[in-house]
Amino acid sequence: MIVGKSVKRVDAVDKITGRAKYTDDLCDKGALIAKIYHSTIGNGLVKSIDTSEAEKIKGVVKVVTCFDLKEKHYFPTAGHPWSTDPHHQDVADRLVLTDRIRFYGDDIAAVIAEDEVAASQAIRAIKVEYEEYPVVLDPIEAMKDGAPQLHEKYPNNILAHTTNIKGNYAEAIKEEGLKTIEGWYETPTVQHCHIENFICYCYEEAGRLHVVSSTQIPHIVRRIVGQALGIDWGKVRLVKPYIGGGFGNKQDALYEPLCAYLCTQVGGRLVKLDISREETFACNRVRHAMKFHIISHLRPDGSIAARKVEVFSNQGGYASHGHGIAAKAMNSIPQLYPCDNVECDAYTVFTNRTVAGAMRGYGMPQVTFAIEGHTDDICKEMGISPLQFRRKYLMPLGYVDGFSKNELYHDSFNQCMDKAMKYIDYDRKIKEYANQTGDIRRGIGMSVFWYNTAVWPISLESSSCRMVLNQDGSVQVQLGETEIGQGADTAYAQMTADVLGIPFEMVHTVSTQDTDLTPFGTGAYASRQTYTAGFAIKQTALQMKERILKYAYELTRMPIFNLDIIDGNIVRTTDGRVLMTLGELATEALYSLQHSEHITSEGTYQIKSNAYSFGCCFAEVEVDIPLCKVQLVDIINVHDCGTLINPALAEAQVHGGMSMGIGFGLTETLLYDEKTAKPLNDNLLDYKLSTFMDHPHLEAQFVENPEPTSAFGTKALGEPPACPVASAIRNAVLQATGVSINIAPLRPHVLFERFKEEGLI
Amino acid sequence: MIVGKSVKRVDAVDKITGRAKYTDDLCDKGALIAKIYHSTIGNGLVKSIDTSEAEKIKGVVKVVTCFDLKEKHYFPTAGHPWSTDPHHQDVADRLVLTDRIRFYGDDIAAVIAEDEVAASQAIRAIKVEYEEYPVVLDPIEAMKDGAPQLHEKYPNNILAHTTNIKGNYAEAIKEEGLKTIEGWYETPTVQHCHIENFICYCYEEAGRLHVVSSTQIPHIVRRIVGQALGIDWGKVRLVKPYIGGGFGNKQDALYEPLCAYLCTQVGGRLVKLDISREETFACNRVRHAMKFHIISHLRPDGSIAARKVEVFSNQGGYASHGHGIAAKAMNSIPQLYPCDNVECDAYTVFTNRTVAGAMRGYGMPQVTFAIEGHTDDICKEMGISPLQFRRKYLMPLGYVDGFSKNELYHDSFNQCMDKAMKYIDYDRKIKEYANQTGDIRRGIGMSVFWYNTAVWPISLESSSCRMVLNQDGSVQVQLGETEIGQGADTAYAQMTADVLGIPFEMVHTVSTQDTDLTPFGTGAYASRQTYTAGFAIKQTALQMKERILKYAYELTRMPIFNLDIIDGNIVRTTDGRVLMTLGELATEALYSLQHSEHITSEGTYQIKSNAYSFGCCFAEVEVDIPLCKVQLVDIINVHDCGTLINPALAEAQVHGGMSMGIGFGLTETLLYDEKTAKPLNDNLLDYKLSTFMDHPHLEAQFVENPEPTSAFGTKALGEPPACPVASAIRNAVLQATGVSINIAPLRPHVLFERFKEEGLI
Repeated sequence: MIVGKSVKRVDAVDKITGRAKYTDDLCDKGALIAKIYHSTIGNGLVKSIDTSEAEKIKGVVKVVTCFDLKEKHYFPTAGHPWSTDPHHQDVADRLVLTDRIRFYGDDIAAVIAEDEVAASQAIRAIKVEYEEYPVVLDPIEAMKDGAPQLHEKYPNNILAHTTNIKGNYAEAIKEEGLKTIEGWYETPTVQHCHIENFICYCYEEAGRLHVVSSTQIPHIVRRIVGQALGIDWGKVRLVKPYIGGGFGNKQDALYEPLCAYLCTQVGGRLVKLDISREETFACNRVRHAMKFHIISHLRPDGSIAARKVEVFSNQGGYASHGHGIAAKAMNSIPQLYPCDNVECDAYTVFTNRTVAGAMRGYGMPQVTFAIEGHTDDICKEMGISPLQFRRKYLMPLGYVDGFSKNELYHDSFNQCMDKAMKYIDYDRKIKEYANQTGDIRRGIGMSVFWYNTAVWPISLESSSCRMVLNQDGSVQVQLGETEIGQGADTAYAQMTADVLGIPFEMVHTVSTQDTDLTPFGTGAYASRQTYTAGFAIKQTALQMKERILKYAYELTRMPIFNLDIIDGNIVRTTDGRVLMTLGELATEALYSLQHSEHITSEGTYQIKSNAYSFGCCFAEVEVDIPLCKVQLVDIINVHDCGTLINPALAEAQVHGGMSMGIGFGLTETLLYDEKTAKPLNDNLLDYKLSTFMDHPHLEAQFVENPEPTSAFGTKALGEPPACPVASAIRNAVLQATGVSINIAPLRPHVLFERFKEEGLI
Repeated sequence: MIVGKSVKRVDAVDKITGRAKYTDDLCDKGALIAKIYHSTIGNGLVKSIDTSEAEKIKGVVKVVTCFDLKEKHYFPTAGHPWSTDPHHQDVADRLVLTDRIRFYGDDIAAVIAEDEVAASQAIRAIKVEYEEYPVVLDPIEAMKDGAPQLHEKYPNNILAHTTNIKGNYAEAIKEEGLKTIEGWYETPTVQHCHIENFICYCYEEAGRLHVVSSTQIPHIVRRIVGQALGIDWGKVRLVKPYIGGGFGNKQDALYEPLCAYLCTQVGGRLVKLDISREETFACNRVRHAMKFHIISHLRPDGSIAARKVEVFSNQGGYASHGHGIAAKAMNSIPQLYPCDNVECDAYTVFTNRTVAGAMRGYGMPQVTFAIEGHTDDICKEMGISPLQFRRKYLMPLGYVDGFSKNELYHDSFNQCMDKAMKYIDYDRKIKEYANQTGDIRRGIGMSVFWYNTAVWPISLESSSCRMVLNQDGSVQVQLGETEIGQGADTAYAQMTADVLGIPFEMVHTVSTQDTDLTPFGTGAYASRQTYTAGFAIKQTALQMKERILKYAYELTRMPIFNLDIIDGNIVRTTDGRVLMTLGELATEALYSLQHSEHITSEGTYQIKSNAYSFGCCFAEVEVDIPLCKVQLVDIINVHDCGTLINPALAEAQVHGGMSMGIGFGLTETLLYDEKTAKPLNDNLLDYKLSTFMDHPHLEAQFVENPEPTSAFGTKALGEPPACPVASAIRNAVLQATGVSINIAPLRPHVLFERFKEEGLI
């Protein structure tokens, strides 16, 4: 069995040596270069565009503006599977170029030139006349009457408002002896900051548009390009090479539609669109900034009699992934801490900030900051140990969610917390750090979370897989689910090897997705890949094995049920004799003059299940009160993501997520000018991205409870590690200082205000 | 029905606009450049190689010589399907670099450099010491005792000698009243002269060698690269983009093995090997020059009582496609003109000429020049009309070949000859041109031929196909059979459209073969493609249709047998109502929350049949006797290649083949220095390639007798057009002048000698 072993990544050598090909490596050096003219206001209208100077610049092939669009094909950008039900489709509110500006950096015009220099010069030479409107940056402000309106269809800028009501809140709060604890919690706009910025190129061949793109979701982007250009989806081919990270930003159709459109404007010539870091901050996607208002009504024993939650999610200028994120955040609370009387409201609201989309955790880092902060606020108020409160009131063993049918099959929360406690020496330190005085204080904080695996039943979950047998018995595996740096290709090879009974080295995962050839799969998101693809891999490998053994029967006349494939050999199970190698069989099958057959296997597996992933984070901090600085001293994440396919890769996933969570908790926030909505720190110097230089040792541990709904016992791990970190840090600061900091990240600016309020400075 | 229509080629626009990508277009411009050091002697040994000066040149990365090979992996180069029977495998007599030189230009060493200039300089700086042996250029000379020996394993240089004996020749010739007619016929060494010279590049990724090559046979070359490097075949990936012609030269593994080997010598870096025209002439493959000795014993009515044939085929230095070509030539005679008493011998003999391999016609242009020339010699001698002789003694209707089981199902020969006669006004002109005198004379000549379709039962015939349904109902088709300029992709799209019931525009043929992904198919050769691939296409499309209709049943609850796909719609056949478009069905199938399925289809069809193709050529010439010049005045080819898939493409095929036949008959011959075996006219200035400037109008007509063994009624057309042309011209010269010219091409040099002998000048 290779599943469960920390084998080396299949792409390790290529990525380390620089041999692995990314989009830009593959693009012909003679490509035309496109650059985008972005709006320099945050809200308004384009009145006119003067391109005359730009067109004079040598090397400029074409300048295209929002006024050149002959037909307006509105399209959605969210990387969700298509729904044939119009009511479940994503909001189609984008045009490849627009005259109605909804955020600072909106796409007004583009230049196509022979080279970068000419394109950049031409962009600078374009002159735009605007009709400028006031901007609004905060969702609660944006909901007010009289606020600037972004989309006609959405009064008060409310993209969506949903509720989750259980029991009778109004009645329940009348219970005697309840203590009411209320808090507001606020999370920042942050960007994914993948190393490789978005890049794509497009050319026409055989009357079709061929797009090569740095995306997580090639099959979805194919569809969106078709929508954006108003052409049949089969007229678009999308190819995804290796990509340098995505984290959800590339789970949107970012600029493939524009690039494809520009290609059509120059007769199908090859056009490349390479996005800068500044554009990535301002014009890609960001994590939804959210505000949470939580009111809990507690009985003296700490049990929650009733709870009210309001979520205000900052959507930015366009719908993108929209309300799903706020809804997920909202709905997570009553599952994490079940309560008989709950009233939750979630609002997703347009503002003139950068468009918010998918980002690792999809609402859960935000809500976890709020609810786990709130939980520790409760504990402090009620005088209950944070750990004991959770042991008592968290989702209990056997809990089943009515909607997803997810179940807590094992005592995962306690098992995770036990491991974390032990690592961080919780009991000793929680006592040691109680009642500190002085300028430098230490604290221990914790946070838990649950996470879905994949998107069923909200949306489609299916995975298709194809396997191709080579002459030497090695096998190619093709899947629509994508390698985006997380190691998916390696996990797929491990799964395939085990089901087929061949050595790991004999599996070649086809890393590149090509929508013309790759079996349909929607891509990398929702921590779905090993779970979802696992079904298709198992089904396809079993079918492949059956075909192989059928052929082995033809060659050996041994009954199929006495045959197996073990370590790349056809073995008679009755006596263990190796009858032939799989390579010998494959060669005979291909070249047989009696019965020639290229043994391949392909199929779709529709997944109608979902699975809870669980985990916790324990963090230890040192707070310098006069300096208002938080130093992270030690941190551990413990995850129950079911069976580990590759422990080393799982650990790497957790490290990455923890790093992202640390940035979210301590340093990262995209700031905007209040007047213009211009992003102020749209670069990696001013935006304080959390890197390994900023971390202590990151400890990652696992509880392996095999998930019964899963083909390989595995479940979500991609996003979970980012979820509990910021709240654990926040709670550690609370323990250290007694001050609840409810605005993430916990920057000195925020601490200064709160420490002043609380009289610490 | 789109089959039978002259639809525009699917690659027409891309090829005309230069948008279509060939190997060099795809290669990264940063590739290392490899160049080969070729021997400057025609026979001998390399004693030493001094690379010291070459290595000093700036930009040289590595110089590799024949002495650097750590292991000697001998490999075959012929593009035949692998045989698991060692006795039917091609001769493995090549090394990527050799110290035993067998032709002028043999591969001794190679340079890998940063750029072309450095590589070329380094090649010039290499110093080689040889032990030189005498050369032999003629097969009959090479068979003599004492001739230079090329391969130890093959005494007297005979690669193979086979016979075809029927009846009792020795007895039969004793019959009274027989007239004996004997002739020697000789055909030249010619080269394919495809526009795109051979080119390939190789790089290592994921521990495997990725080779992109201008080849006709990607799946075969994958295997050969594996053999040449002594690695598992699955460790090699072969990709074939568009190629600029092949004509059989690229049905050999030309330099992919060397390029792949060189790649391994620089740590897997990208290495490109781009072959010049001079190298193409000297170091690729050529058509086997052949000598035929035919003795016919005829009764007074012209019937053939007995016949003896000897074929001597010039193999050049290595085995390549070897004896199959001479054997095919030899065996064609008793089928074309059945005779009860036949004794045939065919010898394939190594010489120090350029290695002979596959070339359009595979022995048939040679033997047709001989047997059809001989036939007209008989007619002249016996005073029988060439046309009447053929009507009487050609393979009769209903003839079945015992080996291939091919059958002459229709009166194809007569139908073809009737059409050609009519076009060229044969009866009138044959009379008009009889008994001419004067310096300028005209003549009419004719020639017939038959041709196989594909290689069964000599070798494996199988084709695998995969189809992928897109959301809009369009379909990708993948096949191992390759587009090499002939229009195969278009024919495949037509076939697919008709079987599936969708418009032609909705079929996207995947032109690029990628051995990792493309269903196994052996490639373009033996005029097999439309015939062979047709089976796989039909089977796969029918299976696809069944799956689609099954899904249509789920959606409509209409019984499958009342459903059909017509013009891209799901139609209820009982009342003709369109229930939905295929696009609607495909979209629902992909995204259905009830039953999601990516509808694809894949399978292998093993073909255990073969088919006779037939045709004739009639040519009219004007001979300037004092100048010894032949001017082609008019020419027609008529072919029965079964049902035409695309008449315009079929016509283009015939035009190309006729042009090749004209060159073979009149101008083309690769000349060698008798002492050194150096090719003397290894460029397109001195080698008189036949081009459209040299032709009159080329008339192509067809007789469409559907082939009953064929999935679409089609059979061989790729190679046949080249077969009968030279002999028709030769016979026209005979009619014009009364002089039989038995050496092709009919250059002034040859005519001068013969006209002198015959007293015309």
